[in-house]
Amino acid sequence: MHGLLTDLYELTMAAGYFEAGKATEKASFELYIRRLPANRNFVIAAGLAQAVDYLLNLRFTDAEITYLRGLPQFTRASQAFFDALAGFRFRGDVFAVPEGTPVFAGEPLLTVRAPLLEAQIPETFLLATIGFQSMVATKAARVVEAAAGRAVIEFGTRRAHSPEAGVLAARAAYIGGSIGTSNTEAGFRFGIPVFGTAAHSWVVSFASEMESFRRLKDLLGSSTVYLVDSYDTLEGTRKAASLGPPLWGVRLDSGNLFELAPAVRRILDEAGLREAKIMASGELNEYRILELVAAGLSMDAFGVGTELVTSADAPSLGAVYKMVELETGGKRRYTAKFSAEKHTMPGAKQVFRYGDHDQIACAGESPAGAPEALLGPVILNGELAGPLPDVDAARRRARESIARLPAACRSLYEAEPPYRVDYSREVLALLDETRKGLEGAEA
Amino acid sequence: MHGLLTDLYELTMAAGYFEAGKATEKASFELYIRRLPANRNFVIAAGLAQAVDYLLNLRFTDAEITYLRGLPQFTRASQAFFDALAGFRFRGDVFAVPEGTPVFAGEPLLTVRAPLLEAQIPETFLLATIGFQSMVATKAARVVEAAAGRAVIEFGTRRAHSPEAGVLAARAAYIGGSIGTSNTEAGFRFGIPVFGTAAHSWVVSFASEMESFRRLKDLLGSSTVYLVDSYDTLEGTRKAASLGPPLWGVRLDSGNLFELAPAVRRILDEAGLREAKIMASGELNEYRILELVAAGLSMDAFGVGTELVTSADAPSLGAVYKMVELETGGKRRYTAKFSAEKHTMPGAKQVFRYGDHDQIACAGESPAGAPEALLGPVILNGELAGPLPDVDAARRRARESIARLPAACRSLYEAEPPYRVDYSREVLALLDETRKGLEGAEA
Repeated sequence: MHGLLTDLYELTMAAGYFEAGKATEKASFELYIRRLPANRNFVIAAGLAQAVDYLLNLRFTDAEITYLRGLPQFTRASQAFFDALAGFRFRGDVFAVPEGTPVFAGEPLLTVRAPLLEAQIPETFLLATIGFQSMVATKAARVVEAAAGRAVIEFGTRRAHSPEAGVLAARAAYIGGSIGTSNTEAGFRFGIPVFGTAAHSWVVSFASEMESFRRLKDLLGSSTVYLVDSYDTLEGTRKAASLGPPLWGVRLDSGNLFELAPAVRRILDEAGLREAKIMASGELNEYRILELVAAGLSMDAFGVGTELVTSADAPSLGAVYKMVELETGGKRRYTAKFSAEKHTMPGAKQVFRYGDHDQIACAGESPAGAPEALLGPVILNGELAGPLPDVDAARRRARESIARLPAACRSLYEAEPPYRVDYSREVLALLDETRKGLEGAEA
Repeated sequence: MHGLLTDLYELTMAAGYFEAGKATEKASFELYIRRLPANRNFVIAAGLAQAVDYLLNLRFTDAEITYLRGLPQFTRASQAFFDALAGFRFRGDVFAVPEGTPVFAGEPLLTVRAPLLEAQIPETFLLATIGFQSMVATKAARVVEAAAGRAVIEFGTRRAHSPEAGVLAARAAYIGGSIGTSNTEAGFRFGIPVFGTAAHSWVVSFASEMESFRRLKDLLGSSTVYLVDSYDTLEGTRKAASLGPPLWGVRLDSGNLFELAPAVRRILDEAGLREAKIMASGELNEYRILELVAAGLSMDAFGVGTELVTSADAPSLGAVYKMVELETGGKRRYTAKFSAEKHTMPGAKQVFRYGDHDQIACAGESPAGAPEALLGPVILNGELAGPLPDVDAARRRARESIARLPAACRSLYEAEPPYRVDYSREVLALLDETRKGLEGAEA
């Protein structure tokens, strides 16, 4: 299952490791974010549950192996290699930060320690899963911050990068702080609260807007949200208001919210519907919500779609998966890459959080002051180390951890100074050694 | 299958239509792009195959129905509605433009004509599927245009918005003109050519770069692509060159390509490897490729990842799905939305392509001059109307159609004047009538 859902070079490398007798050398790879995206002061880790599920179920079917055998890149690969794929199981260890944890550039979100072949193949899937969900959880945290206590609902499946991306975006947005999603599958699969009432097609399918509103109320009662902008927003609001309670409120999906929101509020209030709420939707993001909130508009909820599920102002996260150690020829070698702008740090690491700063240390260090160690065991010898926290626990962790960050980090713009992340002396010494060792080998 | 992979409001509307006795009223919905994204002069339609597969297999399982029954939005829905979901089949008609067709704002890519309940529920999935793949196919066409005959390979799965998005992005990029992908699953599932040799982890896993190169050549022979920038690009190239033929060439993944490419070319040539190719990768997009090509650098192929699969400069497509007709109470009613900035055009449509311009006409029109009609039947009464073109046919269609567009449309920037798209007199008359009819109903 999912055996081929990876870049081809992971599989050619797997073949190469196998033929070179290196497939069982124990390697450590770290997944981390090279640089924080623009305007981000932290990233919320998310996607671990799907990554773990993938690793525990990663297999190669006969049809997949037959396909590989037919590729020109595998003509020199041996039968023994294909047999190894047929029997593939992930039997390694995984250490990870829990979902909902804020992390910073260079900090491992996940460490895989496994025989080289088993650690290499999952690279692509792990990056796509954790990178995407972390990106969306981070965006959600920004939107929620801007909304300043008003509810944020994720509405973006239709603009997600494929339907399945919509399901996972709903999950990540919930971890990042949305109160729920319009994505029904996400509700079904993950237990996330779901929201939704009616679209413009509902309104235009009836002979009159008024009839469409009456029918909606019949169905939804106190959950009714009237979409009032199909023809004329204020007129639509008056019709909705004339129906009286029960209702949840109205939704404004177009037009100038700065003018419409107060006018709509007035119409509802004058009809005695002071409890009726106003939801805004339509091309919202954290910047526009900040403006609406700053203007003191009486809005109770925001439906945020496209911008949230695509993280439109930063639609990718520079997550990478790099080999940091390899046990080869009976001894441990630390590995790194020293090219111009893309260097890596050798050795498996731990991240210690002190509250006002983090330290990236070697995996075995135990610093004074009992800081929080972010990475913990998730899979040991191919078996789940224990139950993973659910999405509600991850969401709580995100909210509580963000609240504990220095206030400057919660800005929608670059924090000055940024959150401090140091390397321990041991890591820096290892970097130095590795560089020297490498120069020796190449000389 | 996939029954819940939709926005909740599609399902509450379905319940509402059912309870109002409207579920079987025949509706037509059109899927189109409201505005072309910045710098796009056309959009390449893609994703139809997945949309069709979804419609033909859309079902609700018992577990899914039980989930819905437990939601507060469905407490007033009747047993008969849930029975209707349990027996759900899409039995309507679908008309669509073939994959690989360039389309413009306002032109339907797909029309669904079906009982209202069956036409409403698929909205979210159809938008996500067709919107995403069309966005990526369009981006690929731009990258391929900039590459001016050099090969473009899609490398982006790790930064795609979920692993499955990576598979579909590979498909869409191929339709848009890439020669293939690094995504093995896309090769397996769709027959797209796959490419890949080795990453930096391969190089650093050996005691020396030289040994890693030797081993790679043992495995891949004439397919060998040496990744030469792990430590020092020119030194790496010299080592690769010293191994002599056979090889495909080298890949440069970092550093200043303007300086490195000529130097690397020189090293290869001086070693007698004039046939060896240079591939560039690493944060490329159409704008950077245009610069590299304009500088006359000797490059043979580009690996394009993140920017391609996320369409980074325009990471969403404003695709919408709007009801345009409804047969209700024994007569056909044309439907539209007239709110401030988001109006829609009533009536099912056809698009006629004249070469230098298009006309959006009513579905039944047959204009003089025998222009190409873009929309054709794909599903009739819930059955596939005929086999869909495969990805190679779609790719060919895209290439040939783009070549026939006015040259200005192939610019990476806004064409001046833009491609002309008119509405027929009949469509405009229908708009006028619909608006008047609506004012009557609401008066």
